[in-house]
Amino acid sequence: MIAVTNRQFKLAARPIGLPKRSDWDETSAPVVGPSDGEVLVAVLYLSLDPAMRGWMNEGKSYIAPVGIGEVMRAGGVGRVLESKDPAFSKGDYVVGILGVQEYATVRAKGLTKVDPSVAPLPVFLGVLGMPGMTAYFGLFEVGAAKAGETVVVSGAGGAVGMTVGQLAKIKGCRAIGIAGGPEKCAYVTDELGFDAVIDYKSADLLAGLKAHCPKGIDVYFDNVGGETLDVCLTRLAPHARVVICGAISQYNNTTPVRGPSNYLSLLVNRARMEGMVVFDFADRYGIAVREMAGWMKEGKLKSCEHVAEGFETFPEALLKLFKGENLGKLVLKVAD
Amino acid sequence: MIAVTNRQFKLAARPIGLPKRSDWDETSAPVVGPSDGEVLVAVLYLSLDPAMRGWMNEGKSYIAPVGIGEVMRAGGVGRVLESKDPAFSKGDYVVGILGVQEYATVRAKGLTKVDPSVAPLPVFLGVLGMPGMTAYFGLFEVGAAKAGETVVVSGAGGAVGMTVGQLAKIKGCRAIGIAGGPEKCAYVTDELGFDAVIDYKSADLLAGLKAHCPKGIDVYFDNVGGETLDVCLTRLAPHARVVICGAISQYNNTTPVRGPSNYLSLLVNRARMEGMVVFDFADRYGIAVREMAGWMKEGKLKSCEHVAEGFETFPEALLKLFKGENLGKLVLKVAD
Repeated sequence: MIAVTNRQFKLAARPIGLPKRSDWDETSAPVVGPSDGEVLVAVLYLSLDPAMRGWMNEGKSYIAPVGIGEVMRAGGVGRVLESKDPAFSKGDYVVGILGVQEYATVRAKGLTKVDPSVAPLPVFLGVLGMPGMTAYFGLFEVGAAKAGETVVVSGAGGAVGMTVGQLAKIKGCRAIGIAGGPEKCAYVTDELGFDAVIDYKSADLLAGLKAHCPKGIDVYFDNVGGETLDVCLTRLAPHARVVICGAISQYNNTTPVRGPSNYLSLLVNRARMEGMVVFDFADRYGIAVREMAGWMKEGKLKSCEHVAEGFETFPEALLKLFKGENLGKLVLKVAD
Repeated sequence: MIAVTNRQFKLAARPIGLPKRSDWDETSAPVVGPSDGEVLVAVLYLSLDPAMRGWMNEGKSYIAPVGIGEVMRAGGVGRVLESKDPAFSKGDYVVGILGVQEYATVRAKGLTKVDPSVAPLPVFLGVLGMPGMTAYFGLFEVGAAKAGETVVVSGAGGAVGMTVGQLAKIKGCRAIGIAGGPEKCAYVTDELGFDAVIDYKSADLLAGLKAHCPKGIDVYFDNVGGETLDVCLTRLAPHARVVICGAISQYNNTTPVRGPSNYLSLLVNRARMEGMVVFDFADRYGIAVREMAGWMKEGKLKSCEHVAEGFETFPEALLKLFKGENLGKLVLKVAD
């Protein structure tokens, strides 16, 4: 065993509003060697996701909350240092729930091997990782997007939103993004090929939707909730599908979540609003990854990562998501 | 032609809040004989429906609003007095959009013949009419209720709600109603066979749902919106379906509609919320009517009408819906 210490971030307190430094304990522990069926992984990149904010709250959800004093849950990509499971060997690259720490000793069955010759490692946390899977199954299965339809996606400058718009184009849909600020907006149209984007920070969202979706919205893929969801509901086309993937505008609320006041548009338009959790599609991740890797190779699907550096900056790096400071998939580089 | 006058209620003003007498013009006009393709119908019973409140508002919806100065739209059942269409003969009983008037001269193609030997005429405005169709297609198609599931329906003392609960029982589901007041509550359990009912006026709804739906709600059929919808959302089972049929608690609002603050339960539970408009199922009404008439004959499905009398009381009779004063399908008797 390598006699090194393992820096970790543990949840110290349940945050009220935006997580503060004092909600975390930065600690060190000895690296623990794997038992049978376990693998020791050196964490290289951690995935920073809006969903992590939800895992910090108490109460019933689609997954158990992180306990106070536990290492914060996070997805990551890393290199196997030692394996006590026949499925993995030293030197393999793997993704899985590794936690906010430098070394993860985890059950082998929770890991998936990745091939760094297919794409750079952070891409396996982005387009070929959970955000990509979320976009793929959310748009194609839950949203049931069909060629010729108009797809609107909020959080278009984020990891999921960017992928949704590109997949919509691949499917033959019109893709309209909603994002905040000129940099993100320019990126999704100029680099990623969205048909249009509405900068909700500087333009009137309703006017933008009227201009860019003259026949209404067929699929609205919602990552943000709040006012944006409510405005989009007023522009649904008949039989529209609203995919509820997240609600980043509401995760740090200290007041109750804002409900969509225009939900009766679902009735008027015989539309549906459906929630999704990507884990439900786990048995088909492989199919999606192969198809999306193919599109990447053909140049139809681009990946974009925002790499924050320095393990010790984790608490501040996470906040970039809620401040809208990341362009694309936010990852924290932990080691080379 | 019969030289009589035709009393009518026309929309005089767009109501703010509950419709007032002054929002109506009670007028008389000569009866107009039918032209080719039309039928003159003596109105016998008018259907009073929550949806009528929506038709009084300006703005885009699933159907055009009633214009100021126009006869108020309403479904009804009547007897053919004169026909200029080969499909109908004098003496036939018909249902269709007849309007709030004593005599309707309407296009034949909008009418459907009914057989008074199958059920009393008001039943064709209730279980065998739009409320019945709404319950049938809403529960079985939109809600996709399956045997063994738990179905919760609000407005259980109303025409749609009563039918939803009974159809749920026929399907092999558990049926839990939400209704206001001891009379309605006793009726739906004792007479209609619901498994349980929660009196939202005297009991805690959340506690009631916990007690009666220990495994959560599989199908929530919502007729009322507001607080009731929001509480029900917190108790959804995984993959639940929420049918948005109406929102009677919100129709007379003078403030914005209350959005469901707990809509993220859709995400956590991978649930969907879907709006419905019964007209979309018109091509299959016949199938549903035959099946439901069969269940009525077997005693599995009961009809319940609340008959208000006196054409001139229309404005006040309509308000019974919004005050929750009707038990079952509210109809206005216009003539014998």
